[in-house]
Amino acid sequence: MSSLPQTDGLPDTIRAIVWDDDRLQLLDQRQLPGQSVWLTLDDAPAVARAIHDMVVRGAPAIGIAAAYGVVLAARAAYRDAGPDWRAAIEPDLTTLAAARPTAINLNWALARMRAAFTASDGDPEPQLLQLAAAIQHEDIAANRHMGALGADLIDHDRRNGGAVLTHCNTGSLATGGFGTALGVVRTLYGRNSIERVYATETRPWLQGARLTAWELQQDRIPATLIADSAAAALLAQGGVHWVIVGADRVAANGDVANKIGTYALALAARRHDVGFMVVAPTSTIDTATASGADIPIEDRGAAELLSYGGHTPGVADMPAWNPVFDVTPAELVDALVTEKGVLTAPDSAAIDGLMRA
Amino acid sequence: MSSLPQTDGLPDTIRAIVWDDDRLQLLDQRQLPGQSVWLTLDDAPAVARAIHDMVVRGAPAIGIAAAYGVVLAARAAYRDAGPDWRAAIEPDLTTLAAARPTAINLNWALARMRAAFTASDGDPEPQLLQLAAAIQHEDIAANRHMGALGADLIDHDRRNGGAVLTHCNTGSLATGGFGTALGVVRTLYGRNSIERVYATETRPWLQGARLTAWELQQDRIPATLIADSAAAALLAQGGVHWVIVGADRVAANGDVANKIGTYALALAARRHDVGFMVVAPTSTIDTATASGADIPIEDRGAAELLSYGGHTPGVADMPAWNPVFDVTPAELVDALVTEKGVLTAPDSAAIDGLMRA
Repeated sequence: MSSLPQTDGLPDTIRAIVWDDDRLQLLDQRQLPGQSVWLTLDDAPAVARAIHDMVVRGAPAIGIAAAYGVVLAARAAYRDAGPDWRAAIEPDLTTLAAARPTAINLNWALARMRAAFTASDGDPEPQLLQLAAAIQHEDIAANRHMGALGADLIDHDRRNGGAVLTHCNTGSLATGGFGTALGVVRTLYGRNSIERVYATETRPWLQGARLTAWELQQDRIPATLIADSAAAALLAQGGVHWVIVGADRVAANGDVANKIGTYALALAARRHDVGFMVVAPTSTIDTATASGADIPIEDRGAAELLSYGGHTPGVADMPAWNPVFDVTPAELVDALVTEKGVLTAPDSAAIDGLMRA
Repeated sequence: MSSLPQTDGLPDTIRAIVWDDDRLQLLDQRQLPGQSVWLTLDDAPAVARAIHDMVVRGAPAIGIAAAYGVVLAARAAYRDAGPDWRAAIEPDLTTLAAARPTAINLNWALARMRAAFTASDGDPEPQLLQLAAAIQHEDIAANRHMGALGADLIDHDRRNGGAVLTHCNTGSLATGGFGTALGVVRTLYGRNSIERVYATETRPWLQGARLTAWELQQDRIPATLIADSAAAALLAQGGVHWVIVGADRVAANGDVANKIGTYALALAARRHDVGFMVVAPTSTIDTATASGADIPIEDRGAAELLSYGGHTPGVADMPAWNPVFDVTPAELVDALVTEKGVLTAPDSAAIDGLMRA
């Protein structure tokens, strides 16, 4: 996969999703930062399992992996059914769509791949591979553009400088490359607009302590880890001027589903006059979902919550409630940054206008 | 140590601080729930280390352990210096006072023990032991009384039934016995006033997942564990009508220092019209500290935050900010329950009146 031209002067970042040797290669995010293990996937069910098991996670990355999964599904369908591949591929598409429920980018990518089916004649693989690669390239380009848009907004806001806080992992590992919220952080630091980023550890899966910490260390961006529960105290202290997060789905009214804990960050930010920015490509916006109450929230079960990196220090057979996303109402969002532009105080009308633009 | 008469009809609970065989025995809370290991302490420096290293934790428990530490200090001082024991004991008192900074109960217990020095002639140990045991017995009695007061308030509130949420561990392990916030939970469940308690895991030390879960399991109280970051989403769902927490220090104006994450719970509770109750004996109220801004907040360092029950799944050399308490402003507290009575909407005047009563 060739590099994109970098117009923002920032270096290229790691890519965790690579099409190589005619197969999908995924950096196994369950094993980071301890080990960098690449898994090779040959068929769509394996891609669906990798998404379900969080080999790859992050809404944009899930969409991109699924797009490549469609390429593998089309290869198998064409091999088995020839010109009838369009019917033969359906079970694989169903399997991919069911891999995880909350991130709408999965459905978006599948719909985009499916829309290319009609034009495809003969072996569909080359054309579908081209589209999957384009989806990844467009995502990286969108991230770089959102990085600049988000950084511009903060640089021109009365609340600038100092530090920002981010949650979960929204970097190269969560996207095609560069990142959404972490792309804004990278851009701000590249401009010398901030001195430091605070990263929540992000229980239960520790995306912050494991993945964001790892990415920031590679980029040599000064970073401080905090417990998720310490964020409100941090914002109360002053010095952190923006909370910058990604999204797994944005509803038509601007409500944002994102990693569990995001809502509490938004409440603390509002209380302390800290800006609250959501950075997400328009592929994350779901105009078919009216409000946050309609977004399906995945519960990943007790075992994940009772485990701390594979270790169980607490009561092992405790019932647990483990929703891995929550909903932040639109009124708590100061800025929604997309590749099509920035919405301050996003609402139904603003989102409708953006999506029609 | 004899049992107290139980006037509330609730069973006795475990005690983690026991004077036996002329020495202090502590149940090592670092090893729960995996192992129940009792440590025997012979001198005050060992007690100070046990407090610092969290063999014993929880504001009231720290005070009680320190009181027994003074008994051991007096024994050593009288053995070494005879009638000059009052001078010889000072270094041990200083060591005990410095063991941890935030919980004011430590200073309170030391001051109360010291006040008994003047009356002590000859070997001070018997009289001081009697006082330390009285402090523990009074704490248990205070907890049972607060349990009833807190439960009464909730039973008569428009927000009752269903479930409550608690944070950290405020049970038998954190006190002389029975518990503060968990004492209210125990009382509510004993009255059939609630169906379930949600317990936060309480990063980084996992007091909830390890200690509260263990206590609730022993009591057969239906409990569900959640990530600290899931609390706001839980309260947004409805069904949880009160957040009930303890305190490490309450300032003269009613601001509450308690386990990190308490402040975020208070913000979410206020947003969703969930009651927010702080349960603490008057030994936790520090009228010499004007407001929460004046309360020293302990930072326990990066290692504790990077560790998950002894395991390090994240980036190991990451800078971290690990304040283990935060401050909740008095205006977010709906009820402060003490053994002397309940303050709704606590403020300086109400606290002054309570402490003079």
